[in-house]
Amino acid sequence: MNTAHTPPPSPMSAPMTYEQAGVQYDLIDPLKVAAQRAAAATASHLAGHGFGEVSASRGESAYVVDVGPFYLASIVECLGTKTLVADEMQRLTGKSFFAGIAQDTIAMAVNDLITVGATPLVVQAYWAAGGSEWFTDAQRAGALVEGWKAACDVCQVAWGGGETPALAGIVEAGRIDLAASCTGLVNPKPRLTLGERLGPGDAIVLLASSGIHANGLSLARKLAERLPQGYLTEVEPGVGYGEALLAPTTLYSPVTEALWAAGVPVHYAANITGHGWRKLLRHAKALTYRIHTVPPVPPVLRFIAEQAGHDAAEAYGTLNMGAGFALFVPASDAQRCVEVARGAGVAAWVAGTVEAGPKELLIEPLGVRFSGDSLQLR
Amino acid sequence: MNTAHTPPPSPMSAPMTYEQAGVQYDLIDPLKVAAQRAAAATASHLAGHGFGEVSASRGESAYVVDVGPFYLASIVECLGTKTLVADEMQRLTGKSFFAGIAQDTIAMAVNDLITVGATPLVVQAYWAAGGSEWFTDAQRAGALVEGWKAACDVCQVAWGGGETPALAGIVEAGRIDLAASCTGLVNPKPRLTLGERLGPGDAIVLLASSGIHANGLSLARKLAERLPQGYLTEVEPGVGYGEALLAPTTLYSPVTEALWAAGVPVHYAANITGHGWRKLLRHAKALTYRIHTVPPVPPVLRFIAEQAGHDAAEAYGTLNMGAGFALFVPASDAQRCVEVARGAGVAAWVAGTVEAGPKELLIEPLGVRFSGDSLQLR
Repeated sequence: MNTAHTPPPSPMSAPMTYEQAGVQYDLIDPLKVAAQRAAAATASHLAGHGFGEVSASRGESAYVVDVGPFYLASIVECLGTKTLVADEMQRLTGKSFFAGIAQDTIAMAVNDLITVGATPLVVQAYWAAGGSEWFTDAQRAGALVEGWKAACDVCQVAWGGGETPALAGIVEAGRIDLAASCTGLVNPKPRLTLGERLGPGDAIVLLASSGIHANGLSLARKLAERLPQGYLTEVEPGVGYGEALLAPTTLYSPVTEALWAAGVPVHYAANITGHGWRKLLRHAKALTYRIHTVPPVPPVLRFIAEQAGHDAAEAYGTLNMGAGFALFVPASDAQRCVEVARGAGVAAWVAGTVEAGPKELLIEPLGVRFSGDSLQLR
Repeated sequence: MNTAHTPPPSPMSAPMTYEQAGVQYDLIDPLKVAAQRAAAATASHLAGHGFGEVSASRGESAYVVDVGPFYLASIVECLGTKTLVADEMQRLTGKSFFAGIAQDTIAMAVNDLITVGATPLVVQAYWAAGGSEWFTDAQRAGALVEGWKAACDVCQVAWGGGETPALAGIVEAGRIDLAASCTGLVNPKPRLTLGERLGPGDAIVLLASSGIHANGLSLARKLAERLPQGYLTEVEPGVGYGEALLAPTTLYSPVTEALWAAGVPVHYAANITGHGWRKLLRHAKALTYRIHTVPPVPPVLRFIAEQAGHDAAEAYGTLNMGAGFALFVPASDAQRCVEVARGAGVAAWVAGTVEAGPKELLIEPLGVRFSGDSLQLR
């Protein structure tokens, strides 16, 4: 199981934690442990086909198999509950936000797949509706199709097909459960970025997020219930809370492809999703990650943190706070990495350094420290 | 989109058609057409990576990309509503049927992937629950994990990981939406079975199904509501309707792998799922498929056809009626194909022949004819 599920750090003064928003990770975890163990035991089947698992990919964001001339990477990812915000905003505004929702769904899969150094090649759509009537809203269904294609175009992936089941009795009436699978290749094989080369002296480059992306929505939705104007509350001049939440997730594969083309070596990569910046601690190595520069915080994330009463530790340990993806590169390549990312249309900052030391993340400008055991993914 | 959605043939005397059971394909179809068109337009992206789509795979059961030394095949498939039967049977009997449900879910993906000649390598799990509490039923969750692993063992695939989101507000409380993605390779490339070699003189070999598999469950569930004893109604001595419905779907990849190992050439393959035997008409070529031998019908499928008042055309045009998978092989290899399948533990029959002629399926022992336009997949 790729998704990490550990509770956020205890709030100092927060009236609403992520668990209070309805997600109880401790109920899911025993199953996940059993599933991880069972899954690991199946790796030996690949030998019968002449191939082998890249075992270092267990616990990483995508699963990698050595198929000889290159590595095969695959993943399936769920969007989560962001559609509930889109549904409510369509009710309030008459406008469909499902083009952005489609991009979000593809981003969940693609942004994870690229962390291992893979070029995404094929995306499959999983659109499970609560009933056939979901598809009769032509504006909404059309937006979903167009947004899906547009995101494939940005990522230069082929949309292979998918499933559009109508699951009355399982998916709620009027709702849709969206997911994407993605398959890619690490090609050539030295592009593999499972962290073998990650080490002291590397720079941490952070790539800008567009907003909340698709993690933290349970909390964000709960907060909306408290606001007198709900999703129509202004979070910056002229932009409402709901609209800001629905900013589509940034697609980072154009950056990783451009970095490869430019010859910028990537030692490791982390998609900053659930658990916020604690994802910087993803790799198993004992290393200290020292942040000296914190990217600007999107107004919607600042608003959420304020409304939830989060201190910096809880905000940065839960939300992306403006940094949606982290690249670990040699210090001598850091500035070029930033320039290549900007050339691919994504703002980036040389934000910190990797040092020898205990496994911890120090966000110095904020006085925040996360210990290595604050993120347990394996 | 891989799944076919055309209405079943008009019933002669049937009090319940598939559409009356709640699945309205005409509402889904405009979206599917738009999605297929948009998806096809993304194929050109592969050239930028040095690869290319195998365009004949569009409209087939899995999407195929030529990556040089071999073909890459991928798919995502939904289980459908079979879990609702398992949930109700757990309520009635206290027993969890989720080990079989896990096999069903993997079968949906694997049995489609192998139709193109691919060896399945990696399966990813998509288990989207209505809430974290779904996972607290240790018996049920444990059965899902064990059944998933057991099916991976049968198919010799690696379980790469997956997603276990809790989607309160999207998936109904107490329910779970199950899907699987599967990635494989056609290796060596001559194993590709997109039907180029399909033609007059081929034999049709049918592989036994274990029961309803996972298609036709909406109808089957509706019928249960009419029965005074519901799922506990006996369909054969000592076997209730619910239990019979929950027979796990046969996994056919051991057969296709054994056929390759034995040197039996496969010209084409069709997974018999929704639309029943009309799936024998899957390939675009104008050919006549003449069936001379009809496999025995599992009691549960005979029971459903009787209860729904289906004539043979509607039964065989909706359900698998005992044949879960079709192989098209040279006539001279047909008997050996049957023997290899049986050696892999799956009953098989030389059931018919492929002939020059208009596109139609003739099930001669039953006096049933399906015209080519009774199945529109592209």
